[in-house]
Amino acid sequence: MSDAIAVVGSVAFDTIETPTGRADEVLGGSATHFAIAASYFAPVHLVAVVGDDFPAAEREFLAARGIDLAGLEVRAGRTFRWSGRYHEDLNVRDTLKLELNVFADFQPHLRDATRQAPFVFLANIDPALQEGVLAQFTAPALVACDTMNHWIESTRGPLEALLPKIELLIVNDEEARLLSGETNIPRAARRILALGPKQVLVKRGEYGAILFSADSVFAVPAYPLEEVFDPTGAGDSFAGGVLGYLASSGDRSEAGLRRAIVYGSVLASYIVEDFGSRRFRTLSRDDIERRYRQFVALTEF
Amino acid sequence: MSDAIAVVGSVAFDTIETPTGRADEVLGGSATHFAIAASYFAPVHLVAVVGDDFPAAEREFLAARGIDLAGLEVRAGRTFRWSGRYHEDLNVRDTLKLELNVFADFQPHLRDATRQAPFVFLANIDPALQEGVLAQFTAPALVACDTMNHWIESTRGPLEALLPKIELLIVNDEEARLLSGETNIPRAARRILALGPKQVLVKRGEYGAILFSADSVFAVPAYPLEEVFDPTGAGDSFAGGVLGYLASSGDRSEAGLRRAIVYGSVLASYIVEDFGSRRFRTLSRDDIERRYRQFVALTEF
Repeated sequence: MSDAIAVVGSVAFDTIETPTGRADEVLGGSATHFAIAASYFAPVHLVAVVGDDFPAAEREFLAARGIDLAGLEVRAGRTFRWSGRYHEDLNVRDTLKLELNVFADFQPHLRDATRQAPFVFLANIDPALQEGVLAQFTAPALVACDTMNHWIESTRGPLEALLPKIELLIVNDEEARLLSGETNIPRAARRILALGPKQVLVKRGEYGAILFSADSVFAVPAYPLEEVFDPTGAGDSFAGGVLGYLASSGDRSEAGLRRAIVYGSVLASYIVEDFGSRRFRTLSRDDIERRYRQFVALTEF
Repeated sequence: MSDAIAVVGSVAFDTIETPTGRADEVLGGSATHFAIAASYFAPVHLVAVVGDDFPAAEREFLAARGIDLAGLEVRAGRTFRWSGRYHEDLNVRDTLKLELNVFADFQPHLRDATRQAPFVFLANIDPALQEGVLAQFTAPALVACDTMNHWIESTRGPLEALLPKIELLIVNDEEARLLSGETNIPRAARRILALGPKQVLVKRGEYGAILFSADSVFAVPAYPLEEVFDPTGAGDSFAGGVLGYLASSGDRSEAGLRRAIVYGSVLASYIVEDFGSRRFRTLSRDDIERRYRQFVALTEF
């Protein structure tokens, strides 16, 4: 029986334009992408807020994936909406519209069952909120968190207060540079480790991911895809695969964490094959195992 | 006994400015960096031209590394000089001065011993010259070549005529994009394979390298360095490590080529630790094996 994972973050509807197409109001949000990815491996408690416009069909989809929705608060008003447009270079995107709606006053109070979860993912929200949520867990065995440039720039104090309480910080290369003030990623990672987290996992998009801890480094390339349809949610589904595998295997050794990062890379490689989290509507556990083996074939020498 | 490798390209003196320092007239050039890297593994025939200003001490250094200099023509005049300045982002550099000097009329005529070499590397020179040199080999077993944006843009015809005669094309990601007209690297590689080479090896700087052939892909991350002192010659020493290992092992299977690419990555990771090829003045075969094992530790899961 896998240990449970609690995730706190956003549930949203995303309207996305990419060079190859457009999708309106697809299910999105950091906590959603994480939860769906992690649900392939372990029970997930989703802690988030939606408006009273949130469709029953979406609740049913999430519930059918084994995601506990008791912590998905429903408030009067509209669910968080985001619209964005990706450039030809999919690493660059413009936010066209951002409506926080009910998410603006998100103040999660965890239920008892959720407080017991041994695995915790603090998705990308205000660091003060992340810390307030973390304090509600009774005895978390592994806490991972994400952040973004906005929080690094505007709330560095709360973020630096949070980092010593984190085991695994998951950021992209740009965020690692901003947080550390170092351009070189290995140097940036060393500085970030000095801020408190036991491990820093740097996401590098099409180039893969690299894990730094005090005495080791692990790097894995991304799965080479001829078509990246929509990168939205890749980072959160990566984190979902990492924590999902850790919770399911119970193996928190360096070797176990490395395998977890490959599973995270597998989930990220799938989500970008369609808009939002659509690809997860049909993705099977067998598909995940097959691509894991392809990662072995891609990297072995 | 390792098979011999012939390399045709430039020998130059480079004046290099980086954010961390400056070096004047250090030994450089594509054929030089390749030859020194390859010389750790196999006998190398260097085919190039220098001026009558080329110092005896540099000849002696190259000869001491087991590099056959019979094909290093000496002509009246000055050796090729290049000056460049790297930006804070070391992927960007400006050429400050380029003096072809005796290299301007380079028309290599290979000696009999060189024509017999089973391994051939056509370093980055005019594709018509590359093809003229290739035609002089009696029965090359493996031909690899490099090129650059300048030749892709100005001499595409001769380059496309050369590619079907090449087993392994080694280019960086920007060159792969320009040659194929595709932004996405896996798609770019598929298009390049259709132009004739059996395999395309794409160099991605700090992100490593990725090998494409008709039915497989292999990716290896770069060695994470906290200090990249000078990237000059990284690509050529990478190629030198690849062909050097292939010539020394005699193993041209997919598995052998993968190990060769890791050795290439090892050589590239060392050359950037000092200006030009200075690091190779002290680098030992043991250092290479040690870092190869570090690559295993970096990537295994």
